[in-house]
Amino acid sequence: MPLYDLSKHPLKVINIGLQSFQEDLQKQGVAVTQMDWQPPALIEPSILEKISLNSDRIDAANSKVIDKIQQGHPVLLGLDIALKVIPGMHKDLILHAGPPITWDRMCGPMRGAIIGALIYEGRAKTPEEAETLAKSGTIKYAPCHEHNAVGPMAGIISPSMPVFVLKNETFGNYAYCTQNEGLGKVLRYGAFAPEVIERLKWMEQVMYPILDKAIKSLGKIDLKSLIAQALHMGDEVHNRNRAGTSLLFRQLAPAIMRTCPNMEDAAMVLEFINGNDHFFLNLSMPAAKCILDAARDIPDSSIAVVMARNGTDFSIQLSGTGDEWFTGAALVPDALYFPGYTKDDANPDIGDSAITETAGLGGFAIAAAPAIVQFVGGSAADAQKYTRLMYEITAAESGNYQIPALDFRGTPLGIDVIKVTELNLTPFIDTGVAHKNPGVGQVGAGVVSAPMEPFIKALTGLAKRL
Amino acid sequence: MPLYDLSKHPLKVINIGLQSFQEDLQKQGVAVTQMDWQPPALIEPSILEKISLNSDRIDAANSKVIDKIQQGHPVLLGLDIALKVIPGMHKDLILHAGPPITWDRMCGPMRGAIIGALIYEGRAKTPEEAETLAKSGTIKYAPCHEHNAVGPMAGIISPSMPVFVLKNETFGNYAYCTQNEGLGKVLRYGAFAPEVIERLKWMEQVMYPILDKAIKSLGKIDLKSLIAQALHMGDEVHNRNRAGTSLLFRQLAPAIMRTCPNMEDAAMVLEFINGNDHFFLNLSMPAAKCILDAARDIPDSSIAVVMARNGTDFSIQLSGTGDEWFTGAALVPDALYFPGYTKDDANPDIGDSAITETAGLGGFAIAAAPAIVQFVGGSAADAQKYTRLMYEITAAESGNYQIPALDFRGTPLGIDVIKVTELNLTPFIDTGVAHKNPGVGQVGAGVVSAPMEPFIKALTGLAKRL
Repeated sequence: MPLYDLSKHPLKVINIGLQSFQEDLQKQGVAVTQMDWQPPALIEPSILEKISLNSDRIDAANSKVIDKIQQGHPVLLGLDIALKVIPGMHKDLILHAGPPITWDRMCGPMRGAIIGALIYEGRAKTPEEAETLAKSGTIKYAPCHEHNAVGPMAGIISPSMPVFVLKNETFGNYAYCTQNEGLGKVLRYGAFAPEVIERLKWMEQVMYPILDKAIKSLGKIDLKSLIAQALHMGDEVHNRNRAGTSLLFRQLAPAIMRTCPNMEDAAMVLEFINGNDHFFLNLSMPAAKCILDAARDIPDSSIAVVMARNGTDFSIQLSGTGDEWFTGAALVPDALYFPGYTKDDANPDIGDSAITETAGLGGFAIAAAPAIVQFVGGSAADAQKYTRLMYEITAAESGNYQIPALDFRGTPLGIDVIKVTELNLTPFIDTGVAHKNPGVGQVGAGVVSAPMEPFIKALTGLAKRL
Repeated sequence: MPLYDLSKHPLKVINIGLQSFQEDLQKQGVAVTQMDWQPPALIEPSILEKISLNSDRIDAANSKVIDKIQQGHPVLLGLDIALKVIPGMHKDLILHAGPPITWDRMCGPMRGAIIGALIYEGRAKTPEEAETLAKSGTIKYAPCHEHNAVGPMAGIISPSMPVFVLKNETFGNYAYCTQNEGLGKVLRYGAFAPEVIERLKWMEQVMYPILDKAIKSLGKIDLKSLIAQALHMGDEVHNRNRAGTSLLFRQLAPAIMRTCPNMEDAAMVLEFINGNDHFFLNLSMPAAKCILDAARDIPDSSIAVVMARNGTDFSIQLSGTGDEWFTGAALVPDALYFPGYTKDDANPDIGDSAITETAGLGGFAIAAAPAIVQFVGGSAADAQKYTRLMYEITAAESGNYQIPALDFRGTPLGIDVIKVTELNLTPFIDTGVAHKNPGVGQVGAGVVSAPMEPFIKALTGLAKRL
């Protein structure tokens, strides 16, 4: 006799893959457990075979990469002027977010930020003059990532901008990033109005020397420790940086008091930081850069050491494929938009800030940041779901950075292009959203999944080198 | 035919009550779901009948109490000297934590703190002199709670100590609390060595005027907002106050810079606060006091407005029973002890800090504070379990303070003695642990469940007034 007569029992279904099947069953009152699954990405069989044949070599290389990332120890040493300190910087060079791009292919906010930077540098008086110079061929462009630097959104670094100087104490490499300007109408979102330039000038003339002196008086600020603590206090250090900013502020304030003779300026600097919960982003990003740069150039490794977007292209670099960029079209983020704006206003995904996800933070750690779960469905469980998924495409779990809500499990660390393509599941990235036109600024914040194309290309590129 | 042949299926058991039954089954490999349940506390039938007959009146009164608590809006206005500002304070009066107590029944740490306070006040030169004076009858003692004040641990407030001045903006009532001294060898844990007194003097002579001036320059600091934010950043504002301290620090630092002419002193004050993640406790406590005092004296209400311990007794007050204290013996907390100490060294539960739990914070919100889950089993799920249990004994959920990990559910608010006695489930309290001898100081931190006796007495007291 059958133990179960199906007609007498309520159906319980596990649906694998296509979500609409689940929804149909739910409409009929059937309990369904949905298992996310997608067919693998389309890759040439010869590539897959080569990867498969070399899996031992790849695994060994990936272990080395993960070891180096785990050992990374970023500290903040102070600030300096980009021209003096960033390797290869020169007076006609402007660094930008993402992979290499020419003026004609640049998106609106990147053009806007370059126009602003040329006015800020005194190379142009009007936006029109700036645009003429920008496309004249005199000004050269290069990715921040190719100069040990990172920049949020447009990511523009021009020669006279002050930058934070970070060092990976374990391996001795450096990373650089500008000071965060706050939200809304700011250069990195493509705005270039006079108040934007004025703020940048104040940041250069007043804030930079005060911060530099204070940080140097402390010797260094341990960013590894700050990031670890921030994750215990609701930050994922990409779209949420309130705790990191607070903990940094606590170290800076007494040092500023002891080193700044002008108390009015000092108070204004502290008020500026206190008014900008994203101030720490421009430290979490170069901290991640610093950590990942030390893990570059391990032959045979399938681990990503860069994910970056210029607002037109989304590109990645692998530890095992040197300086080669693997590129696809950048997608428009799913976002919460500021009043008056919609997805139609949004520029495709832009910025080097995906370096945080590449280091196992940001979207990969979103379960640590309940205050921003409205970006991903509104519940703590939604956020945990995204973090859990990222364990599927990573090689390890962080030994340094933990997620309290997952009982202090280490964050998903080390994006493996083999797993990404096998599961057809791309990295999940927190992000801000810029208006697609130059001169406007930020219009929202949200999340985006990376496009698959760069990962397929990277796998192919790796296979060719094996 | 039977649908299930039990012998062919694995047993699945739901065990209600006694946990040892569950453990026995688990040892035999049987899957058991444990349901916590205890028989109701032993209460005279006539009391239960009276409560039951008056349930409508009680419910109506409790609604009023909850309304007043929900509307409470505590702000920090500045600091002042206890003698000048605390109602009823006089030069021979010392306020202490918990319900009224005489010298002969006081525990070690409370005696130690009083000895320290008399030396600090210049009323004695040696601990021996202080002890003689303390028990001479010249010095009078009263609970902080009877003077609109609260104090952590021993809770000693002597006449010349500076106190924070808080106001409940909605109802106009005030609350007071000393400045937090940090951890370890400090007065509130019963230590009175010269460095303890020296620190208190510095806090009076240097820190107090600087903080007062800075806070007054800001007009006020909104503690309702700070506490709500801190709960989103991993604090429960009793045993974990790092976020609250950080957010307060961010407001104080620029204000101190603008108002303090001596930068060396200003820097030392900021360093002192930066070095003490519990600084905010002495604001979360009077904030809770402020909120709850406005909800006192609503006839017929079974909601607790005070839970407090003096290290000997644990007492509560209800909104519906005026100034009457309902008392039982204080229990020794389950704690993580500092190296070299054990539960044998611990004093029974002490301090007014259970005012945070009374206001729906502290242990009631422990699910918001993953960094301290080692006090309750080590996992996020353990912490959530305790918070969930507290919904069983409370009348409402906070409209102001939320728990991110429970999808922003309001914290359990308004301890109802009827529910506590009915379920035989007492409030769960986070706490520090003092050494039982005077002069030693803190030996650990942990959790404790309130004793049942005060709740039974309170229910009886309420019934008699109905």
